[in-house]
Amino acid sequence: MYSKNISFKIKNKLRRHQQRTTKRIMAASKSIETNKETNWFNRVFSSVKLKTQRSSSPSTNRLTSITNPGFESLGDLLRLRRITEHPPRQQQNTIDESLVEIAVNSSTDTSSLADKSKGTIDFFHTPSGTMVTSPGSHYADWSTIDWLSDQARDRLRHQIITEQRKDSLWKRFVAFHDALSGWLCVLLIAINIGIIAAMVDIGAVWLTNIKVGICLPAFYLSQEHCCWTASNQTYDQYQHVHCANWHQWSSLFHVTSNTVAEYAVNYVAYVVFGCTFATVCAILVKTFAPYACGSGVPEVKTILSGFIIRGYFGAWTLLIKSIGMILGTSANLLLGKEGPFVHCSSCCGNIFARLFPKYGQNEAKKREILSAAAAAGVSVAFGAPIGGVLFSLEEVSYYFPLKTLWRSFFCAMVASLMVKLLSPFENQHRGLFYVGNNYRWFYFEMIPFLLLGILGGLFGALFIKSNIAWCKIRKTTRLGRYPVIEVILVALVTLLISYPNPYTRMPMSTLIRRLMTSCELDDESLLCDYQRNSTSAYEKNEAAKPLTGVWMSVGLLSSALVTQTILFIFTFGIKVPCGLFIPSMTLGAITGRIIGILFEACVYYWPNFFLFTIECSTADEQCVAPGFYAVVGACAFLGGVTRMTVSLVVIMVELTGGLSYSVPLMCTALVSKLVGDALVGEGIYDAHIKLNNYPYLDVKAEFIDQATAVNVLESKQEKTELIMLPRDGLTLNELMTIVRTYKYNGYPVIASQEEASIIGFVLRRDLQLIIQQRILTNGESNTNLLISFSRTIQQHQQSNLIHLYRLLNRSPTTITLDTPTTTIIDLCRKLGAQTILITNDKGHLVGLLTKKDIITYVKQKKT
Amino acid sequence: MYSKNISFKIKNKLRRHQQRTTKRIMAASKSIETNKETNWFNRVFSSVKLKTQRSSSPSTNRLTSITNPGFESLGDLLRLRRITEHPPRQQQNTIDESLVEIAVNSSTDTSSLADKSKGTIDFFHTPSGTMVTSPGSHYADWSTIDWLSDQARDRLRHQIITEQRKDSLWKRFVAFHDALSGWLCVLLIAINIGIIAAMVDIGAVWLTNIKVGICLPAFYLSQEHCCWTASNQTYDQYQHVHCANWHQWSSLFHVTSNTVAEYAVNYVAYVVFGCTFATVCAILVKTFAPYACGSGVPEVKTILSGFIIRGYFGAWTLLIKSIGMILGTSANLLLGKEGPFVHCSSCCGNIFARLFPKYGQNEAKKREILSAAAAAGVSVAFGAPIGGVLFSLEEVSYYFPLKTLWRSFFCAMVASLMVKLLSPFENQHRGLFYVGNNYRWFYFEMIPFLLLGILGGLFGALFIKSNIAWCKIRKTTRLGRYPVIEVILVALVTLLISYPNPYTRMPMSTLIRRLMTSCELDDESLLCDYQRNSTSAYEKNEAAKPLTGVWMSVGLLSSALVTQTILFIFTFGIKVPCGLFIPSMTLGAITGRIIGILFEACVYYWPNFFLFTIECSTADEQCVAPGFYAVVGACAFLGGVTRMTVSLVVIMVELTGGLSYSVPLMCTALVSKLVGDALVGEGIYDAHIKLNNYPYLDVKAEFIDQATAVNVLESKQEKTELIMLPRDGLTLNELMTIVRTYKYNGYPVIASQEEASIIGFVLRRDLQLIIQQRILTNGESNTNLLISFSRTIQQHQQSNLIHLYRLLNRSPTTITLDTPTTTIIDLCRKLGAQTILITNDKGHLVGLLTKKDIITYVKQKKT
Repeated sequence: MYSKNISFKIKNKLRRHQQRTTKRIMAASKSIETNKETNWFNRVFSSVKLKTQRSSSPSTNRLTSITNPGFESLGDLLRLRRITEHPPRQQQNTIDESLVEIAVNSSTDTSSLADKSKGTIDFFHTPSGTMVTSPGSHYADWSTIDWLSDQARDRLRHQIITEQRKDSLWKRFVAFHDALSGWLCVLLIAINIGIIAAMVDIGAVWLTNIKVGICLPAFYLSQEHCCWTASNQTYDQYQHVHCANWHQWSSLFHVTSNTVAEYAVNYVAYVVFGCTFATVCAILVKTFAPYACGSGVPEVKTILSGFIIRGYFGAWTLLIKSIGMILGTSANLLLGKEGPFVHCSSCCGNIFARLFPKYGQNEAKKREILSAAAAAGVSVAFGAPIGGVLFSLEEVSYYFPLKTLWRSFFCAMVASLMVKLLSPFENQHRGLFYVGNNYRWFYFEMIPFLLLGILGGLFGALFIKSNIAWCKIRKTTRLGRYPVIEVILVALVTLLISYPNPYTRMPMSTLIRRLMTSCELDDESLLCDYQRNSTSAYEKNEAAKPLTGVWMSVGLLSSALVTQTILFIFTFGIKVPCGLFIPSMTLGAITGRIIGILFEACVYYWPNFFLFTIECSTADEQCVAPGFYAVVGACAFLGGVTRMTVSLVVIMVELTGGLSYSVPLMCTALVSKLVGDALVGEGIYDAHIKLNNYPYLDVKAEFIDQATAVNVLESKQEKTELIMLPRDGLTLNELMTIVRTYKYNGYPVIASQEEASIIGFVLRRDLQLIIQQRILTNGESNTNLLISFSRTIQQHQQSNLIHLYRLLNRSPTTITLDTPTTTIIDLCRKLGAQTILITNDKGHLVGLLTKKDIITYVKQKKT
Repeated sequence: MYSKNISFKIKNKLRRHQQRTTKRIMAASKSIETNKETNWFNRVFSSVKLKTQRSSSPSTNRLTSITNPGFESLGDLLRLRRITEHPPRQQQNTIDESLVEIAVNSSTDTSSLADKSKGTIDFFHTPSGTMVTSPGSHYADWSTIDWLSDQARDRLRHQIITEQRKDSLWKRFVAFHDALSGWLCVLLIAINIGIIAAMVDIGAVWLTNIKVGICLPAFYLSQEHCCWTASNQTYDQYQHVHCANWHQWSSLFHVTSNTVAEYAVNYVAYVVFGCTFATVCAILVKTFAPYACGSGVPEVKTILSGFIIRGYFGAWTLLIKSIGMILGTSANLLLGKEGPFVHCSSCCGNIFARLFPKYGQNEAKKREILSAAAAAGVSVAFGAPIGGVLFSLEEVSYYFPLKTLWRSFFCAMVASLMVKLLSPFENQHRGLFYVGNNYRWFYFEMIPFLLLGILGGLFGALFIKSNIAWCKIRKTTRLGRYPVIEVILVALVTLLISYPNPYTRMPMSTLIRRLMTSCELDDESLLCDYQRNSTSAYEKNEAAKPLTGVWMSVGLLSSALVTQTILFIFTFGIKVPCGLFIPSMTLGAITGRIIGILFEACVYYWPNFFLFTIECSTADEQCVAPGFYAVVGACAFLGGVTRMTVSLVVIMVELTGGLSYSVPLMCTALVSKLVGDALVGEGIYDAHIKLNNYPYLDVKAEFIDQATAVNVLESKQEKTELIMLPRDGLTLNELMTIVRTYKYNGYPVIASQEEASIIGFVLRRDLQLIIQQRILTNGESNTNLLISFSRTIQQHQQSNLIHLYRLLNRSPTTITLDTPTTTIIDLCRKLGAQTILITNDKGHLVGLLTKKDIITYVKQKKT
């Protein structure tokens, strides 16, 4: 059965034998199949199965994982390198050396081999197809990685390079390149994501304008650029620029004479273009890169926590997500770009890491690069490099905050510089919503700020609850089967609702900027329809009387708030790339501005209220600036949704360029998080991780529990058998059966069936390789050869022994039954342990826990 | 012998028995003394000493440490709480219950007991006096803490409070208070350190001015405040304000007619006052708080990494260090305030943590508070809250970056707000050296910026090398015996040299602000002596011709650079509170300004050089702004000395208020760190940690090594014996001898002398308590009672057994001999393991490593 699928990746020299020996293997494997029910089977398992109640299980099918053997010393390794460089003759190949080669292959070289023979699959055909290994890593898809052994491999690699440095000039260059490669890699990532972000920005602006009209002299120009040099610039009351070169669709169809027809044509053009963009986007995502949908942040978090999702960071995903971002935002859907940018820059990270074996072939090290890339993602989305680094540190990264801090910062900074360099007509040194230090806040304003914080927390809770509920419906009902139709429907509704309201018609980032800007004296837009007592620029400290325009704005904004909130709930989760920073901030800015206007009106109509008189009377600046309330509101709403803390405040500071705003922003974020946490215990990203059941072990949550390893073992729902291999006495035939029957990551090796003291841990994958090699290379038909994991073997035994000592990981993570759960969790999340062996007080093995078991336990406890 | 010193802290109810039983104990202990050489002694040790070569040692005298037993279940704990609340009658006291009480005492209640009987010392008289426990913690001075057990204790405490919440309204309040206490604690710390910082600032300014003159109408006013409302304000060419109320000492002595005499009087006053301040400062430090000297950052780092230095964070240290800062900076010594502020706020942290048992009585939890306090320290020193948090995260903190991030941020923010609220006449929302976004930089300026980076790295290396060399001389020669004289000498030389040069005469922070400020058109100071072509404020883009004043300034600044550098090397390390941020930044700002002036001159004299023409011609702003070079220079020099990275850039951005400067600042910091690291591998703080031989395990350094636990065991220089207690069969008498002879932290308990499988780990301190209690309470003279660590004991045995099962930590950290060193190091620094047991492949104990052993090993390997 399984022999049909043999096309396993082995070393080049082994591959020569492949064709010759295929027939022989088929015969051998057939004999194994038929032997299944014979007596030795029972003999083996009666000896290695424990009678204890506390049986343990390795991971489930979807979560297999693989660890690597440690090496004994540098001497060994150098020897085995020599072996690899000068392949020994096949006949005189000692058992030991061939084993060592396998160990090296399985831990360092497999990927490069696999690259050459793409699409290879596993030796043993696993029915669910989960053990498939793919190019770029020795881990299977949907598996958790073992940080400890990956780090061990990297230290080994590093030491070899250091040792060899003195050998030659080339080796010295290699060592130099190796030392620099991390920086080189993040530099490449930063430049790339910078270029992508700039292109996305330009593309999105152009497509957004296409919905409204076209620049006749040069169709590829956006409205702003079209009118850049025009002499006849005019501005409407929403501060859109107009000029002769720029034609709305109505004027192109010559219906400008009839207002209704003009409106209708523009409306239809707006809806048709928007729907087209959304449809193209959904089809692209569905056809070419299903992983390109959504925000990506929950998945990036899960992957950084040590999980493998193949193809999630692929080149296709990058391409489609970038194009999807342009199309999605141009369609005026309620979605932002920062989450997708984090995903895209992680894709860049993954792609460029392949150029550097240090990172590309080591999943643990690769996550350092991915952390830095995630920082660059937020950095390019907002031009907020420091905020990006803190976001990566606080929200996304898992294991390496301090070590990669500096490199992440470099990456984020270069990326943000790239975007600014490439963006035409953009101020090079300013945040997206720059307001500078224009506003001054007063202590009595803390009251409305805290109100905004509460509203932000409420909004966050409402949004998370409803969005998760809707996503559950989508997952469980027939709706989930028609993602493209869902996108089209959402887009249609959004566009139909958006157009009539000028504040929703404009792109969200423009709206935010408008809301955050203060009213200049010569500003004649609706929002700034105030009756000023004076026209002097130096006299701003008195509140002005709001006129009709302001109240109209408030009405429009309120209706926008309601419709956009509902649309937002249904939009986040559709199968297009969608972030949630900008929509959340939009809703927050709208709320903030409304409250700001109301509060300013209060100051105007009751100037003698005691709170206002204390500070307003002495101030030089405007006492209540509604624009600043929009800033605070955006912070509050974003905080309520994402539950970010420091990074949120820093991002807001960088976005607005106002360092002096940090105190009110912090207080608001604090209240918003408190209220949100009280209502819904987790942020949107964690909620989506939970919804999708990703194996994520929260690194920040404190897990209070007095249980010990015993309880975790007992709580395991699936009482799988604990398979232990004896150090000596197993035959090759028996081993093959075990490996085939029990598809666990690996098996603990114990001293003997009488005394279950732990000798080490051996990976199933390595055993598969050795079985494969014995059959392929040497064409062994004698499957009764004995397997030994002993350190030393007698000379006379060597002929009929397979010596597997070197395959052993001789320092598996081991704890006692009395170890507290919290220590076990820390072993997983701080050290990155993947398999933990459990002993009783005699030092005998009584159980085994995988990271997956522990995640399951934590989830059980929490619910 | 040792019985003379019995005044051990025991529970109140035990204390009643003390006087009655003292005589009996003396008799008993005497019998132990005399029994020393009898045969049982040999019997015990032959059974528990292993014959293996790999003997292991606990920590040395100066580094003893103590771990705590884990509790079995919540049920146990609740029961034992009941016991504590209702002390059982002495006679019917079962063995188990009294033991449990000891376990609780030793882990939670000792401190409160100790507080009541201050100055108590240990039961067993240790000759070196190192096992003395002090109030506030159950750890001994100079010991390392065990995070694992401290965290376990905290979880237990938390769970008890949560369980009891429903019992009564009071308990509910207790739970609420407990949940809030972390925030409350940092709030108190923030307010306090804010007040202290404001007072230090005001005091330092006043004393600094006293050196120069006095405000006659109100002697307590500083020069600036004295002239604040005066009508006749004048400014000299260094922008000092003058007015009629303010009198220099010369004018007070009526010698203004003679220029030489005037100069001489002022000179003498300046030197005399300065010397007095320095002397008072040194005497205060020497007399009242020796720990108040130096920067404090290396010690804070070490303490946060899990080390105990008693009194380092005491109230006296706080007081003296605060006063010392005022005196030291007023004396014009080359020292700053940020390091001392970090120390002071950590003192506040320690003091306020005592109000909250959750933190005060748990060293691991206390470090979360101290991390936040450290952030507040930098925040108040510079008004840079975000930078402070990052400094704490990057440079100071050890274990809890993410969890405490938000709380640290809150603490830093409130503290910085406090300072600004309390500082009179200070702009409330601006950094210390606010320049805003006044400068614009151009890409060709990267060349001088990188040059500054290189200079910064060189300076850092030079400074660290020379300062460490000088500190070594101080430590090893007779110089170290006269700290006060050294301070006076340094102050004298500094003051004599400083006065003639106006740039060194002024306080360093004033100088930095001056250097970072750009030249306004109406500025007539020496530094701004340019020939402007135009007087219009809108035409600044052309470089101006520097006149004599500028070149004079360059000369003065150059001489200042040389003298201050030399003085700085000798100053950092003298016995007064001294930080190094401000001096480093001063030297950097001087260098930066000089280079800026030279570069500006280049632009003026060769305007057609291709680099200049590209960007300068199109720019609206001034092309080369020497003020901005001072900013960059300060960043470079500070980076070279401290090797900070992200936090450095963020602090500089916050100090100057210029978010747009982050790119050049980052590049400069990067170069400076690279150059510095290439020359001297560590920053000044780490160099001082090494110099003082603190047991600090660097959390950032990657340790590449292929060695395993075997090698670490073998490398241990002092081959101390591995003492193991058998589970059963030891007599009380034997136990007493072991505890008295081998002053280790604790002893592993093994199954039996034949089979060394690990049962658990028991602390020496707990054993001492139990012995003490048996003798004091029950007055046992039968020292042949048997000790048992078994889980269950037979009913008939109970009468002559002491059952110590509950004292056992049944999940000690255990590894195999083959475990890589890196994993061991990670166990220490990520999990906080303090004692690690090592087993062979039979699961038998063969060795023991303490954190100290591992630190020693790492140090050996590095050198």
